[in-house]
Amino acid sequence: MTVELITIGAELLSGHTLNTNARYIGEQLALAGVALSRQISIPDDHDTIVAAIRESLGRADWVIVSGGLGPTNDDITKKAIARVFNRTLVFRDEILTLLKERYARLGREPGPYLDTQAVQPADAEFVPNELGTAVGILLNDGGKWLAAVPGVPREMRPMISTHIVPKIAAQVKTAIHSHTWSTTGWPESRLYAALELLIHDHPDISVAFLPSELGVKLRFSARGADAQVALERFAGLVRPRLEDALYAEHDTGLEEVVGQLLRDKQMTISAAESCTGGLLAKRLTDVPGASSYVVSGYVVYANRAKTELLGVDPLLIEKHGAVSEPVARAMAEGALARSHTDCSISVTGIAGPDGGTPEKPIGLVWLAIALKGAETTAREVRLMGNREMIRARAAQAGLNMLRLRLFGDQQ
Amino acid sequence: MTVELITIGAELLSGHTLNTNARYIGEQLALAGVALSRQISIPDDHDTIVAAIRESLGRADWVIVSGGLGPTNDDITKKAIARVFNRTLVFRDEILTLLKERYARLGREPGPYLDTQAVQPADAEFVPNELGTAVGILLNDGGKWLAAVPGVPREMRPMISTHIVPKIAAQVKTAIHSHTWSTTGWPESRLYAALELLIHDHPDISVAFLPSELGVKLRFSARGADAQVALERFAGLVRPRLEDALYAEHDTGLEEVVGQLLRDKQMTISAAESCTGGLLAKRLTDVPGASSYVVSGYVVYANRAKTELLGVDPLLIEKHGAVSEPVARAMAEGALARSHTDCSISVTGIAGPDGGTPEKPIGLVWLAIALKGAETTAREVRLMGNREMIRARAAQAGLNMLRLRLFGDQQ
Repeated sequence: MTVELITIGAELLSGHTLNTNARYIGEQLALAGVALSRQISIPDDHDTIVAAIRESLGRADWVIVSGGLGPTNDDITKKAIARVFNRTLVFRDEILTLLKERYARLGREPGPYLDTQAVQPADAEFVPNELGTAVGILLNDGGKWLAAVPGVPREMRPMISTHIVPKIAAQVKTAIHSHTWSTTGWPESRLYAALELLIHDHPDISVAFLPSELGVKLRFSARGADAQVALERFAGLVRPRLEDALYAEHDTGLEEVVGQLLRDKQMTISAAESCTGGLLAKRLTDVPGASSYVVSGYVVYANRAKTELLGVDPLLIEKHGAVSEPVARAMAEGALARSHTDCSISVTGIAGPDGGTPEKPIGLVWLAIALKGAETTAREVRLMGNREMIRARAAQAGLNMLRLRLFGDQQ
Repeated sequence: MTVELITIGAELLSGHTLNTNARYIGEQLALAGVALSRQISIPDDHDTIVAAIRESLGRADWVIVSGGLGPTNDDITKKAIARVFNRTLVFRDEILTLLKERYARLGREPGPYLDTQAVQPADAEFVPNELGTAVGILLNDGGKWLAAVPGVPREMRPMISTHIVPKIAAQVKTAIHSHTWSTTGWPESRLYAALELLIHDHPDISVAFLPSELGVKLRFSARGADAQVALERFAGLVRPRLEDALYAEHDTGLEEVVGQLLRDKQMTISAAESCTGGLLAKRLTDVPGASSYVVSGYVVYANRAKTELLGVDPLLIEKHGAVSEPVARAMAEGALARSHTDCSISVTGIAGPDGGTPEKPIGLVWLAIALKGAETTAREVRLMGNREMIRARAAQAGLNMLRLRLFGDQQ
């Protein structure tokens, strides 16, 4: 099974846009046990698209095309596909009906060009787009498959993962089995050192480290009839070595795990944030249904807001500085008292690019957790990266401290 | 002048690594007025590399190859290049001398494999690598050029910008010039309708629509000696047609523009958020130096938090619902009064996936802005997408309302 990907758009070639679609599609295929064999970026030009699709069809069983669908693209991809397969473009009533129903449900007027979205190459299936009007195309001709999806990442992603990849995976004979685990708090090098001997002793299991600024996902893959059993045995050996860095034995965000802990313990929470400016509360409320445990958040960016909103003593700030253990504790305790929740978390730090000193460098962050009827705990972390990364990592460190504290209290 | 880029590495196809090299090289070429015409990612396999280079040389004047050079790559790219051009690989003493001198200067011992780095295809120039041992290759054969650089971004970048791109740019006759503008609030289809006739009447200007969930960037490009003048004239025609959708005549985020307005007017701000859960405050504080105008934020996720933190009358919530104009107004006015800022913004809406009703569907969002000594304004927006997109778009709509209100009050 060979799959090639053609990503269309001048913005991918001019350095304007990072090709995150290529990464996503490659990853989704890899998770389904299929290796992408080639990826090609070309500008949105009809003859170039026709030539590129023909070349890819000459080499591969499946060709996925992303981009060049949508109202302002003059349907360039559709026309190119119709040309490659010698098909006419036909108007599909059921697509227009579907799109109009969606607008009606939202109580909105459709924009111009909605009709053009209902045009498809003859005898093609369409791939629903739940988040936009550019529906996808799925076509089978002479044993070769072609799928076309729009280039807007949010619209493309569910179309690929729900409709295209499962179809490709179903055609694969010796599939790869894989598990993805989620870790945070340890750098890739520490995880590697912890697993190095195991990896060496198990050549049948391939281990991929997928780092992001929030943590490292681990992917264990194996092929063949015994793959599932081999993976389970390997998982049993890996688990204790990851200690508390492992937060889920699947691919998920820390906010989901923390949300589940709060739900299980029937606890409510509030957040008090300075340097993260709302990001920690945003992460907590990323989870659907978070309203059952998130009550409130306080973004106390100015020092006077720390005092007015949370009752932090101005003398405490003057004496220790806004980024300090006593202020972090006072923020958490202030949020707990004023929001009447079961727990609260606070974060105060120096995200940069200015404001660092030798004693309190950029990246220094204090976190505190207050629990009703228990001692408040606090810890310091020192984070690397630019302003955006430090803020993202500070929110993540806060969620992780919360996970460990709630999990610890559960036992 | 046509240039193609071949990026080599299985990690680019498996979703493990984002292809930032392709972006960097495309951008460097674009800055030099050269459009990359195709980018291809392939795995590190000898025959695949040979075939891909041959195909690219058949289409392009220049082929840049990145990756597959370096001690652990078994010199796969060098061997493939030698095969394509029918050249032998020769040992180059002067390269080894150069590498040894560098190690001596650094007071370090060279690692293994240093000798293999001094091997090059016969009659090729080498491209110095100031930050590593994998030197590049530059080769001219039958009017076609090939450049090969290592895949390590830190080493590749200066080689491209200092040695390769200037060489290509020197061969170009007519360079490309381009401007990128930032818009929000109008869907791509409406922008296109507003500009359609202009685009049609100016075939010398190419216009690209670059949509994201937060808005659409517009890129205008032209080629030739008159390009700058033509672009300025075109900009003058486009500007009034974009009305208030245009928020910057460069590529930037709305939080930067709003931040600059607040700074210019020496105003402070607070935010009161329900459905965005802190994201609006996070966006406001994404800007370095935001502490000079952001005082505080209130994440009032639970109804009782709206009352306790902002003084919203519970009867108002009971009568109109939490997602309503009166509650949005009361939230903004509560934040203004309690934070003592010059302005405040509120957002309350239904982000889903649950909680929608026929009268108040998922995606319904109320926004309000309170200004000291002025009338509070409110507006309703209806947003499409999943929970994450609705939250992202609600924060963006809030920032945009703020921009228009502050900008309006300025005039």
